Amino acid sequence: MLLRLRKNLGPSELESVLAVARDLDLATRFLDAQRTVLELVGPADPRARSRFEDLAAVSAVLDSSDQPELVDRTRDRADTVVHIAEAVFGGDSASLIAGPCAVESAERLFEIAASVRAAGAALLRGGAYKPRTSPHSFQGLGAQGLALLAEARARTGLGIVTEVLDPRDVEVVGRSADAFQIGSRSMANAALLVEVGKSGKPVLLKRGLAATVREFLLAAEYVLAQGNPNVILCERGIRGFDKFTRNVLDVGAVAHLKLATHLPVVVDPSHAAGRADLVRPLARAGLAAGADGLVIETHPAPHEVHSDGAQAVSLPLFAEIARDAQAILALDDRHLRPTLYSPLGSPQLGV
Amino acid sequence: MLLRLRKNLGPSELESVLAVARDLDLATRFLDAQRTVLELVGPADPRARSRFEDLAAVSAVLDSSDQPELVDRTRDRADTVVHIAEAVFGGDSASLIAGPCAVESAERLFEIAASVRAAGAALLRGGAYKPRTSPHSFQGLGAQGLALLAEARARTGLGIVTEVLDPRDVEVVGRSADAFQIGSRSMANAALLVEVGKSGKPVLLKRGLAATVREFLLAAEYVLAQGNPNVILCERGIRGFDKFTRNVLDVGAVAHLKLATHLPVVVDPSHAAGRADLVRPLARAGLAAGADGLVIETHPAPHEVHSDGAQAVSLPLFAEIARDAQAILALDDRHLRPTLYSPLGSPQLGV
Amino acid sequence: MLLRLRKNLGPSELESVLAVARDLDLATRFLDAQRTVLELVGPADPRARSRFEDLAAVSAVLDSSDQPELVDRTRDRADTVVHIAEAVFGGDSASLIAGPCAVESAERLFEIAASVRAAGAALLRGGAYKPRTSPHSFQGLGAQGLALLAEARARTGLGIVTEVLDPRDVEVVGRSADAFQIGSRSMANAALLVEVGKSGKPVLLKRGLAATVREFLLAAEYVLAQGNPNVILCERGIRGFDKFTRNVLDVGAVAHLKLATHLPVVVDPSHAAGRADLVRPLARAGLAAGADGLVIETHPAPHEVHSDGAQAVSLPLFAEIARDAQAILALDDRHLRPTLYSPLGSPQLGV
Amino acid sequence: MLLRLRKNLGPSELESVLAVARDLDLATRFLDAQRTVLELVGPADPRARSRFEDLAAVSAVLDSSDQPELVDRTRDRADTVVHIAEAVFGGDSASLIAGPCAVESAERLFEIAASVRAAGAALLRGGAYKPRTSPHSFQGLGAQGLALLAEARARTGLGIVTEVLDPRDVEVVGRSADAFQIGSRSMANAALLVEVGKSGKPVLLKRGLAATVREFLLAAEYVLAQGNPNVILCERGIRGFDKFTRNVLDVGAVAHLKLATHLPVVVDPSHAAGRADLVRPLARAGLAAGADGLVIETHPAPHEVHSDGAQAVSLPLFAEIARDAQAILALDDRHLRPTLYSPLGSPQLGV
Repeated sequence: MLLRLRKNLGPSELESVLAVARDLDLATRFLDAQRTVLELVGPADPRARSRFEDLAAVSAVLDSSDQPELVDRTRDRADTVVHIAEAVFGGDSASLIAGPCAVESAERLFEIAASVRAAGAALLRGGAYKPRTSPHSFQGLGAQGLALLAEARARTGLGIVTEVLDPRDVEVVGRSADAFQIGSRSMANAALLVEVGKSGKPVLLKRGLAATVREFLLAAEYVLAQGNPNVILCERGIRGFDKFTRNVLDVGAVAHLKLATHLPVVVDPSHAAGRADLVRPLARAGLAAGADGLVIETHPAPHEVHSDGAQAVSLPLFAEIARDAQAILALDDRHLRPTLYSPLGSPQLGV
Repeated sequence: MLLRLRKNLGPSELESVLAVARDLDLATRFLDAQRTVLELVGPADPRARSRFEDLAAVSAVLDSSDQPELVDRTRDRADTVVHIAEAVFGGDSASLIAGPCAVESAERLFEIAASVRAAGAALLRGGAYKPRTSPHSFQGLGAQGLALLAEARARTGLGIVTEVLDPRDVEVVGRSADAFQIGSRSMANAALLVEVGKSGKPVLLKRGLAATVREFLLAAEYVLAQGNPNVILCERGIRGFDKFTRNVLDVGAVAHLKLATHLPVVVDPSHAAGRADLVRPLARAGLAAGADGLVIETHPAPHEVHSDGAQAVSLPLFAEIARDAQAILALDDRHLRPTLYSPLGSPQLGV
Repeated sequence: MLLRLRKNLGPSELESVLAVARDLDLATRFLDAQRTVLELVGPADPRARSRFEDLAAVSAVLDSSDQPELVDRTRDRADTVVHIAEAVFGGDSASLIAGPCAVESAERLFEIAASVRAAGAALLRGGAYKPRTSPHSFQGLGAQGLALLAEARARTGLGIVTEVLDPRDVEVVGRSADAFQIGSRSMANAALLVEVGKSGKPVLLKRGLAATVREFLLAAEYVLAQGNPNVILCERGIRGFDKFTRNVLDVGAVAHLKLATHLPVVVDPSHAAGRADLVRPLARAGLAAGADGLVIETHPAPHEVHSDGAQAVSLPLFAEIARDAQAILALDDRHLRPTLYSPLGSPQLGV
Repeated sequence: MLLRLRKNLGPSELESVLAVARDLDLATRFLDAQRTVLELVGPADPRARSRFEDLAAVSAVLDSSDQPELVDRTRDRADTVVHIAEAVFGGDSASLIAGPCAVESAERLFEIAASVRAAGAALLRGGAYKPRTSPHSFQGLGAQGLALLAEARARTGLGIVTEVLDPRDVEVVGRSADAFQIGSRSMANAALLVEVGKSGKPVLLKRGLAATVREFLLAAEYVLAQGNPNVILCERGIRGFDKFTRNVLDVGAVAHLKLATHLPVVVDPSHAAGRADLVRPLARAGLAAGADGLVIETHPAPHEVHSDGAQAVSLPLFAEIARDAQAILALDDRHLRPTLYSPLGSPQLGV
């Protein structure tokens, strides 16, 4: 590791750095006459980078490649592959997560669940607890919504992904969910990340709307640090200056994350676009950039939904997206799990 | 209220809008032949705007000035003035909040507390629970830190403002704190906002780093909706594209908020700049734009702190900022509470 | 067209609006009692929207779909297909533009030209005049660079795309170029857009790094308004808050532009990423989102270049990108022009 | 100077770095065993930083404080003070620039000129050539507008600041203008910067809407490199994600620029806010952060203007802003030039 120290440090400041080095069993050596570039050599420790970044005497960690954090892709580290019900994320496998923004009624939910399963989804998403900007907006059905999701699983075999917002709800949500969704508003909610980390269940972690990729990875690090390796990173758009889309889908982050971490990465084009008519091209772009799956908001009657209706795609359009996905994955010898049933014998990308 | 509806709505979509109108006792009238501009007339209800925004059939709320939310400045609504210990925020009064980023040791904390009180601060800030990007970073002293803060209050008479991160901690933090700080990472943490709302204690609510002013106001609305009117809004910089400052202090938001809401607004130049050398000019800019107070990170030995040391100002510089504040407030016949003791008989702005 | 007027307009303000309506032969009708929503009916005129937006009395143009501008995709408007040498952009055709950032030497340029042509490029790009942030940076070879580009065309048959920075240079650059590149720094340089518009030659127009899609389209409108329909829009990344990539490739803009305008759209993943290792996945993402071509910076010895070397891809990697392109286009029955020669009989997407 | 080189450079790559060092007479020394940190020692040369940044082998210039560019504030460099007519920018002096967005009619212009002069402005601004997003928008009166500005100067003694958009117009605009305005869209238009640099006349250089402060300073460097030191930097807001203001006034940039460069800095709150009701608080904030002057859009009948009417302030409000300015400057023993006439004997800040 190579540190850049501030200039003209006093003895106590310098000692603050050396003390951390000793604590981590790292040998130290200054590389320049002004004593501002410090090399540290010793055993790899995922805590090392953050410990040094914490110090006021350190202006930058110039190189920490020898002190990887838990999320880092390292030479001998195989891809983490996360299995949830029939879904497989990572390695040569990708899966689709579909469903409504919020769970609204039993009938509607079961209709969607059956349809998206038939069209190729492996997991059902749907919010029982909804994060809302206004206290006056619909906040979800809560426990009743969880019960409906559990019933949908029983009827269809789809695994359930649903959001948890409050560390006090992790246990109850975990009883109905096969995976926790941590929404973008909660990405930096450490208390919540620790609780889902302790649960051991898979976590679909959405990027905060203005989070850097490093902040995103360190949010995952909170979960991994609890001994839970089952994290799926979800790029869902970052806040931009132009309102023709709700957010800017950052496909560069998808490509970068595939190089930087061993964790699987999925894309949520629905929340990125905020418009149903752009979901399909963004879904294709995400997979072409290397994503290991998609999260697609679907609804049989998009106009009736309580929240985010403008971005939900119809079920026939979801089926097209699933066929696209299989075709694009095939270009890289990757596979959609479960495989789409195709009466024509081979997947085709419709236009 | 005036709504813009999507074009060519079907009967069930239209009914979804009319049903909400009936529920809120609002009469409806279409203004155009295409039936896309809908006027609603009736009793003001703070829930109205969000209820309609929730509907997929509504593309925009064009005008909701007759349905103000709880945070809105309305014609007859006086400024909310929040009193915490000797501090007064709002109306013609402003106060200073100062202290270290994190509580580190008893001795250090008491030294800072005594100094900032002498220099003009009314409240002591200091983190016992620290929100950190990495799980490997120092997370604060926790309960021990709270005890030290309570002791600092007993010694100096300063009110205590400290961050709460987890809804499960609201009660314990509230025992030591005179006001809760909700950090920018937690601005959209509804569970936490509801708990501090229920507590009735004053809340220093920091703007999320990519939150719009409307999202910021609606976060405050969560607290107000619990019957707690004592919210102080804190502008602390938004995320920008240039790294010469950590964030971009949005003084336009300060000026806008003073027009849009009755709540007091303070500025945190320390977290905005991330550099001690810009804290003073940004503090001045915030007050000149209309802010009702400042939050300043101070430390007697900035280089030794565990986090954010580069932005902490020394105690003599804090004293200069306090004198600046009093002079700038005086230009508008506003007053710093408590008033600075000045041996020269009148406040002066040093250069 | 539907306008939203400011409230409580005086007679002279209102008259400013009605006068423009008369000038454009539009009939006017207020839709609401407060006279703030004004409907205008009459002949379509591409000037209408901007004329009304110019007025202080108009707070917003709510709907201008009946007054399309020249760039707008309208019901009966076929895709604009731009032909440059063997390249075809638009409709069911796409092409690749490749070459170095700056023209450096004859030998190097001819080597690159021959290689990219063999690998599938239809056009050679290379800067003779370089826009540079610092006056002390290498500004390009100028006229000498243009002569080398002309020679490269003569040797290989590749069409030439090169940047013009100054309206006074349009004539001389036009003698060597088959198409003008307008760089992102110049997107809003109206004098330059007018000159390249008058030239009648094809224009590769890059999006400004913080331009909205509407500003981008209106820059193209400057060229079209001169009677030159041959504009290719180029998405090359927008400025973001995270520096892991130089810019954020906005694939949502690509997808939106394909719906909003009849002009072809290409993607420049090299300038978006600023890193060679992300060029290939971003190129794939752009085409999967619907782009009609790519601009790829290539160099046989990336480390030796005078500018932007870190983002240039090697020639073997460019060849892979070309094979990718052909395979992704095939999924939509689109075609790379000219078609790649493939000894295996069919294009394959390598991994 | 300290460079960070890429790892594992080949001999030719390394030679590309050493050759530039020799050309600039700089001695070289590697500080680390991996040969990635290179120290350069020798004579200061403003070209040095950019020359090295141009090289692909150099990943970053870590420290260039010993190789200042022309714009840099260095130890012995006094503030540049720019005089234009009676205006003085820099040192302990500040001045106000006021006027309409665009020159519209003789009568109106002379009325504004007389009024703003009476209220405290030293310079008249007004556009004869207007940069417009759409080709269909009003583009200014051109030569006729210049003649009116010259006449306004003759009548009032106010100096004239007006925008030049095209390098071919520098000579003709220079005949009527006392200072050139380079608008934010043109900040990176090197051809234009070179021409106004050659003219020797003062230049009011506006920051591009997504320009970093370094890019802004290097745009000024283009003018200084032509031997013209009379550049005034203008912060006018950067593009943000929230539309309650048109742009985000970056007061941190004002404070930083006052430390980083010897050039004077002014603030344009009108274009930052895009709303008349926020101009006054933003003007105050800019001066309190250290700005050396203001650019204020004023109009006697804001609703009638052809462009940007919503942000123009009335003449009485401009007079209040001028009184504010004098009072805030006085807090730092700075002076408004020319001094406001005050019947009460001392400047007062009205509320």
